[in-house]
Amino acid sequence: MNKDAPIGVFDSGVGGLTVVQEIRRLMPNESIVYVGDTARAPYGGKDTETLISHGREIINFLVDKNVKIVVMACGTSSSTSYEILLKEFCATPIIDTIRPAASELVRIAQTRPELKPVFIATAATVKSGLFARLFAAQCPQVELFSRACPLFAPMVEAGLSTEKNNPLLQFASDNYLADLKGKVNALVLGCTHYPLVQNALTRTLGDITFINPATATALATKAAITPSQFAIPEINYYTSGDPQKFSEIARFIMGKECNAKPCCL
Amino acid sequence: MNKDAPIGVFDSGVGGLTVVQEIRRLMPNESIVYVGDTARAPYGGKDTETLISHGREIINFLVDKNVKIVVMACGTSSSTSYEILLKEFCATPIIDTIRPAASELVRIAQTRPELKPVFIATAATVKSGLFARLFAAQCPQVELFSRACPLFAPMVEAGLSTEKNNPLLQFASDNYLADLKGKVNALVLGCTHYPLVQNALTRTLGDITFINPATATALATKAAITPSQFAIPEINYYTSGDPQKFSEIARFIMGKECNAKPCCL
Repeated sequence: MNKDAPIGVFDSGVGGLTVVQEIRRLMPNESIVYVGDTARAPYGGKDTETLISHGREIINFLVDKNVKIVVMACGTSSSTSYEILLKEFCATPIIDTIRPAASELVRIAQTRPELKPVFIATAATVKSGLFARLFAAQCPQVELFSRACPLFAPMVEAGLSTEKNNPLLQFASDNYLADLKGKVNALVLGCTHYPLVQNALTRTLGDITFINPATATALATKAAITPSQFAIPEINYYTSGDPQKFSEIARFIMGKECNAKPCCL
Repeated sequence: MNKDAPIGVFDSGVGGLTVVQEIRRLMPNESIVYVGDTARAPYGGKDTETLISHGREIINFLVDKNVKIVVMACGTSSSTSYEILLKEFCATPIIDTIRPAASELVRIAQTRPELKPVFIATAATVKSGLFARLFAAQCPQVELFSRACPLFAPMVEAGLSTEKNNPLLQFASDNYLADLKGKVNALVLGCTHYPLVQNALTRTLGDITFINPATATALATKAAITPSQFAIPEINYYTSGDPQKFSEIARFIMGKECNAKPCCL
């Protein structure tokens, strides 16, 4: 592993930037190449074959950029495409978000016997059943709710989470989850877009514990790399869609300018 | 033009099926090849270059199927990609949905001096300004509202319109349009997905006139083709996404089995 090579990160769109934030926080000296496949977002309603094909194209793009590791910062890709792409790209380490998230919830469950968790994600991720299987294998005594929230990612990509208290976002959150109020005390954000709707989720469910896979994913990445020590590391953003639109939402999420370049996938 | 060749129809997903319904009603003896690009839907937030590229790939697919005409049954493609693709595929007639819809609203405006219309469509279509320009060129005295409704198409693709009175769909409709209640008496469905949310729109805006571009588009198609006379014409559905999911929503829209085949775009 070339320690000075960048970390490659990808997502269907802007959601994976929540993982970039954690990578920046935990590894401030690493360069990053980010790909948001906004031209083909959202991923949550797509079939496995399509998702594998999209993931393959993006990882090839990142490998061409000489990344030292790939972070699949997309819950949908992680739950449907990880194993097959890990085999295909055997020379490149790949980290996903769903497996670290499941380990994190297991760790919490072991110290909080009263834990009543719900896992929320895209339709494809919930349908895969991966998170529920991984968690049940280690914590069969804990009841886990799973709930698909298919419109959250499109809403974030449409920029709704950049507004304070967007009513559509709040209504969707209430509609998806209000019946679980009082029944759950922890929520796993199973899609990297969902930390961006956390305010709406809090208004729906009250004061509960949020498990943001970004942290566990960044920690898993940190453990897998040979670190670089750039004083001012480079972050390059690429999008398959409209660079201007991507850059606007990215600036809101990252709190600074993120001028994206176009890429053809 | 080979009169027995099929009519090619495409959309980002299932929305174009509202145009297929009108083609079937007005030209029951025509064969049809339909492509729903569900793997890359929704189109409404994508940039023009991406949309032109997607349209080009789909028209190439349809030309390979020897269609006698292409119906661009997608408001977003129609408003961003029509002219350039018309030039590129000069050997194939292409019909769009926005230009026929504008002509239809002009026709209505000429006989209803009290007309107060609103045009609703995806973000890309509204941003293009095409419909407003076409209408204003002929009816400069009529005030036209334009409103982007970016979540309707993703909601239809997620299957929400197959439920009676889906609350999310209704909330989105109220959120987008309730302030126009009483101010408009006609609404142009500027995206082929929108006839599928007409019930929600009626609850928001009351008893107004809906202009569904599907009818004008099918009439324009009828005028452009040499008709075939199949007693039992063939309809073939292709999707770039999940054939099962496409077929389920298509069955709801068409009222009969629509077994889609996969296609790579």
